[in-house]
Amino acid sequence: MPTQSGFDAATLERFADLMVGFGANVQPGQIVSIGGEIGKEEIVRAIAASAYRHGAKFVDASYFDLHVKRARLVHAAEETLSFVPSWYGARILALGEQRCARIGLSGPVEPHLLEDIDPARAGKDQLPFLRESGKVVNERTTNWTIGPAPGRDWARLVHPELEPDEALATLVRELVHILRLDEDDPVAAWRARADVLVAAAERVTERRFDALHFEGPGTDLTVGLLPSSRFLAARFETVDGITHMPNIPSEEIFSTPDPLRTEGVVRATKPLSVGGSIIRGLEVEFRAGRAVRIDADEKAEVLRGYAERDPGAARLGEVALVDGEGRIGRTGTVFFDTLLDENAASHVALGSAYAMCLEDDADHARMNESEIHVDFMIGSEDVTVTGLTASGERVPVLAAGTWQV
Amino acid sequence: MPTQSGFDAATLERFADLMVGFGANVQPGQIVSIGGEIGKEEIVRAIAASAYRHGAKFVDASYFDLHVKRARLVHAAEETLSFVPSWYGARILALGEQRCARIGLSGPVEPHLLEDIDPARAGKDQLPFLRESGKVVNERTTNWTIGPAPGRDWARLVHPELEPDEALATLVRELVHILRLDEDDPVAAWRARADVLVAAAERVTERRFDALHFEGPGTDLTVGLLPSSRFLAARFETVDGITHMPNIPSEEIFSTPDPLRTEGVVRATKPLSVGGSIIRGLEVEFRAGRAVRIDADEKAEVLRGYAERDPGAARLGEVALVDGEGRIGRTGTVFFDTLLDENAASHVALGSAYAMCLEDDADHARMNESEIHVDFMIGSEDVTVTGLTASGERVPVLAAGTWQV
Repeated sequence: MPTQSGFDAATLERFADLMVGFGANVQPGQIVSIGGEIGKEEIVRAIAASAYRHGAKFVDASYFDLHVKRARLVHAAEETLSFVPSWYGARILALGEQRCARIGLSGPVEPHLLEDIDPARAGKDQLPFLRESGKVVNERTTNWTIGPAPGRDWARLVHPELEPDEALATLVRELVHILRLDEDDPVAAWRARADVLVAAAERVTERRFDALHFEGPGTDLTVGLLPSSRFLAARFETVDGITHMPNIPSEEIFSTPDPLRTEGVVRATKPLSVGGSIIRGLEVEFRAGRAVRIDADEKAEVLRGYAERDPGAARLGEVALVDGEGRIGRTGTVFFDTLLDENAASHVALGSAYAMCLEDDADHARMNESEIHVDFMIGSEDVTVTGLTASGERVPVLAAGTWQV
Repeated sequence: MPTQSGFDAATLERFADLMVGFGANVQPGQIVSIGGEIGKEEIVRAIAASAYRHGAKFVDASYFDLHVKRARLVHAAEETLSFVPSWYGARILALGEQRCARIGLSGPVEPHLLEDIDPARAGKDQLPFLRESGKVVNERTTNWTIGPAPGRDWARLVHPELEPDEALATLVRELVHILRLDEDDPVAAWRARADVLVAAAERVTERRFDALHFEGPGTDLTVGLLPSSRFLAARFETVDGITHMPNIPSEEIFSTPDPLRTEGVVRATKPLSVGGSIIRGLEVEFRAGRAVRIDADEKAEVLRGYAERDPGAARLGEVALVDGEGRIGRTGTVFFDTLLDENAASHVALGSAYAMCLEDDADHARMNESEIHVDFMIGSEDVTVTGLTASGERVPVLAAGTWQV
């Protein structure tokens, strides 16, 4: 009997099949990489079985152990903390070269495990994140997806007011709804939602805005776009023509901003979970594209550590818009998980950018580059998004969660 | 509180420190690979923490999930079952090139998980064993060790007559004794035992036997040696001069036989556990070095599958002698774990050979090569070992567990 995830056996298999058959769209004969922390074995195994049922040639399940990370942060010399063995990146690049499928699992495991670690030290070790994954995404050589893996620790974090069993049942109920596993045909539901997002992305792209202006409580931020920036929904196609949905759920349209032209102040609208720490009350000020001030009620040092990683780490690599139609924002729940929370609200990300969001190759040299990519949520029903054209026109894009274009 | 392994917290740390500080002899600044199945997290984490305390630059904990292997064996196409992704071997080779330390954990986890799998299919998938590990061992580029990781499943297999808690406590008590963790100074005890084995290896080597003759109940086997075959104890030195003990426990001296000159019949003196299956009542007949008949009371098909893997898989790559002084044989327990059982009794192995056991480079071309290496136990108090010289002289080597040379 499944017990680790809180999914019943039938739902576990339904979820695994959604991830494999639709999200990553695993093809017969492919190698499938599955990544998750220790604590997600039940879901990893269900996905592995589904992948093999779908004709996978091999499933490479790769587990990350947060306790080993903790031992490193406690004991290792500070100058070694950003080191990553060569074979970690080489494996990701091989997954691309060999046209593999990749499935990742989000959702915090033991979220308090690193709480007593000096955040400046914690920020230097960004594993399991790997810089090479950005390259493989940009080259579109893998069909991939990331989905949420519920568990008791995560449930307690999200619903601390409930008894542990009830908390897990509640989280699972929310996720089943968000994942559209409560639909007769979850795949058909996801296809319809992706159609809406793809159309919105095309409409916003067509306006060729010079910048987007976010206004709301504590937020007055202008994010410059590059000349060929286009908005995409998370329905991708590999170079070999395999359609896949890289996030399940996905409710966003996103683009690549000009890393030199972000100005103003932004207040995060949700807490964010980074490398095992939870940052609350985040406020970031940008000048000429650079984050010159990072403050927070809690754990600002963690994000500061990330932002000092390299020259691009303090500049934006993504801007994304989320409407009010998605199922995540409507739950009203903060999930402390980027996959879910970023899809609940418009957001920006410090760090690496998506080349696929730039139609003109000449713009590729201008996009931000970094070893990090950290999303934080800046949208809500109270935040309006206005497009600024090169001629100075102001065009409403998103207001009260509804598309204006 | 540690509970998974059955070690109490102090013993767990003592064991981890023995593996790291003495077995692998981890040096400051090294990368340390730790490999073990899911189910051994507690010990992996203790070893990781010890490695970082010993100054490791990075600990790469790599978990193998037997349930994912099971899904493969159940669902995947037969012709894919021997496939191994390129990055598995590349990682091992990189560990060598980068002069890393390697720590492995033996001991069965969920030993009945693959019982219902067709043994011929099971034999095609030898993971987590990797052929490249033999190359790295032969090149002596890594300081490494393997030690036993106790747990409830293993304890139930070894002591089925006991209640689960008592079975685990008994297995742990046996292991603590075998690992010499019950000594005031386990490292000093291991140094003394290694001295005895190194001296025995030198004495047997000096005789320059042409072959070894094993005689006992059901066994009449002659194993030919190569001209420069030498016996070694498991106290190794890397090319960089790092002394390490590749097995803890180790009670054997071993050499590389002539793959063309094994003749006769041998009956295994203990069950062996291969790829999740337990083979009992094994009997193997050799002609001109080749295993021409493999029979067993149970699961002979698994070993037959291994032996068909490649041309060298049915020939010997190792012959090893174990005296009666070791602590394993004296327990009288069958551990269903090669690390322990092979060190309880003299043994041979089908498959890949150790180049380091050949003093003359010219003999390297003659040693056996294979993608497999499967040990099985052929020694006991009732089995005598006689050395045969090139001139036909018979010299007693081991009788009733006592060295005769």
